[in-house]
Amino acid sequence: MDKLAMWHAKDLIITPATVLKEKPDPNTVVFGTVFTDHMLTIEWSSEFGWEKPHIKPFQNLSLHPASSALHYAVELFEGMKAFRDADNKIRLFRPNLNMDRMHRSALRATLPGFDKEELMECIKQLVKLDQEWVPYSTSASLYIRPTLIGTEVPTDSLFGDTLPSLGVKKPTKAMIFVILSPVGSYFSKETLNPVSLWANPKFVRAWKGGTGDCKMGGNYGSSLFAQCEAVDNGCQQVLWLHGEDNQITEVGTMNLFLYWINEDGEEELATPPLDGIILPGVTRQSILDLARKWGEFKVSERYLTMGDLTTALEQNRVKEMFGSGTACIVCPVSDILFKGEAQSPPTSLLC
Amino acid sequence: MDKLAMWHAKDLIITPATVLKEKPDPNTVVFGTVFTDHMLTIEWSSEFGWEKPHIKPFQNLSLHPASSALHYAVELFEGMKAFRDADNKIRLFRPNLNMDRMHRSALRATLPGFDKEELMECIKQLVKLDQEWVPYSTSASLYIRPTLIGTEVPTDSLFGDTLPSLGVKKPTKAMIFVILSPVGSYFSKETLNPVSLWANPKFVRAWKGGTGDCKMGGNYGSSLFAQCEAVDNGCQQVLWLHGEDNQITEVGTMNLFLYWINEDGEEELATPPLDGIILPGVTRQSILDLARKWGEFKVSERYLTMGDLTTALEQNRVKEMFGSGTACIVCPVSDILFKGEAQSPPTSLLC
Repeated sequence: MDKLAMWHAKDLIITPATVLKEKPDPNTVVFGTVFTDHMLTIEWSSEFGWEKPHIKPFQNLSLHPASSALHYAVELFEGMKAFRDADNKIRLFRPNLNMDRMHRSALRATLPGFDKEELMECIKQLVKLDQEWVPYSTSASLYIRPTLIGTEVPTDSLFGDTLPSLGVKKPTKAMIFVILSPVGSYFSKETLNPVSLWANPKFVRAWKGGTGDCKMGGNYGSSLFAQCEAVDNGCQQVLWLHGEDNQITEVGTMNLFLYWINEDGEEELATPPLDGIILPGVTRQSILDLARKWGEFKVSERYLTMGDLTTALEQNRVKEMFGSGTACIVCPVSDILFKGEAQSPPTSLLC
Repeated sequence: MDKLAMWHAKDLIITPATVLKEKPDPNTVVFGTVFTDHMLTIEWSSEFGWEKPHIKPFQNLSLHPASSALHYAVELFEGMKAFRDADNKIRLFRPNLNMDRMHRSALRATLPGFDKEELMECIKQLVKLDQEWVPYSTSASLYIRPTLIGTEVPTDSLFGDTLPSLGVKKPTKAMIFVILSPVGSYFSKETLNPVSLWANPKFVRAWKGGTGDCKMGGNYGSSLFAQCEAVDNGCQQVLWLHGEDNQITEVGTMNLFLYWINEDGEEELATPPLDGIILPGVTRQSILDLARKWGEFKVSERYLTMGDLTTALEQNRVKEMFGSGTACIVCPVSDILFKGEAQSPPTSLLC
């Protein structure tokens, strides 16, 4: 662990941009297309450990074309937000949960661990430097994207097929980088836009013994084809099913909640349990925490199948179904296309 | 398809390196650590299609830090080889099979398709320019790594969580690049070094409805943790199992073959079928083609379980077990650690 602890936020090197960009209108900016003036980079090697963190003008990365992130998806990311509150103070939303998850993803990807507190402090310094990019609005925010990639030039066992005699090589070079992007309000009116879902067991997002519970890049690229099929079928997102009983797992890249009267007649807010195939979302956790604190209905982490949902819809027991995530916060579900038939949960509560 | 066909190998722009690097000794060079003087790049955008292919001095890639390859593993690769034959002619090993697979991977990753013949012609031009890097040896070769990455700067639905109203965005920017690396003979003596395997159902490489049959980056980064556990358990590679009956699927990043007397007393060369979780290896296909042409024993693509293997080992029905891949060609298996017990197939035929 010594080599992981070499870097401290107090060693931060700041190279400010000489020309600052014009800031976009938070009401019209498209998500993830505009980036702030600065970025944070921290390089790591197994030989020297973490180098000093560096805040510098936003710029392209110069990467060796054999870098393991580009060939083997040795990479992970986080998504978090900074808001400007009513007192004009800038607040991060539960960043410690993102740092915890990022560290777990790093270990799963065999990328180096890091000091979570020190990284959070570096991110705070970056946001502070670019603070004018945090929208003066309670509905818009600054999206923060910490990323950790392998910059290893593959050798032997990493390069394509494996060689029998030379043994495994964990990444020996890596880099954290953090970029910031102002994001507007997602919803043009005062209401939420519900989403239509395509549910087809032909595509499976994650499986036990895999990496679906980590925010590793490979989970996302592999989902795009199904997303295109959803659109071709007139829907907006994929409802990811799992197993022969068509368990409902996630929606697009969001966690999923069902607010209903369950089989036992209880009012319940339910979401699938963290059994290894579900991403432990920060918004998911926050919704569970809040709902449990309110104590107004049963709150469960439990399995839900398409059969459960269909029966409940037929019996008018569904009150609302929604996805949750950092980008959209919550997103109601209006329609589900499954086996050629559309099912429509009510959306009257959130919309 | 118009935009895919815009580029032709005859439009190739060649910018030769002004200083050539020293070539390594093919007897001592470590796989994938030395690259030749040139590389091929071809950029694509949904707006303008494929640009002219460009051979240029080997150099770092300059990538926007939000490129989808770095966050969402929108990336795939191929591995192929050029050999110098006894007549001093340079030959590619079945490159059309690699181009076919690369094209299939591209479609699965929602990356743009391309003209396979034209790409192969560009690769031939690259190898021709760097022909002195093809080792003067029948046992060493030049490893060719075509790669296709998404260089999209994520917008809306790609950036973290998805937005309900804006729909899917397939990559609108991408890049093919091809790099070359001379590789020595893998085996110091005249014999093959057998490999020891760690078989544990705790980790699953691929599953139906996923991308295990494509050469997408995400399949590889997600396997490193298990590979580390294999080494921690005194083994060299992972034997990937699947399902409750512990089907034997692949070895490390190689396909797997069992040469045995099967349950019906027949002499059989068997490998798992291409059912969606197996990478369709070029070496795998070549072994099947050759063995079927020989016609000396039964050749089967069939399921094999750990139970089948254990019983056959107990009854001395296993003749040889080996992995196959572009890098090592074939690699015999000497030991399998499963449920705390070591099982040892004979290795007398190949070693």
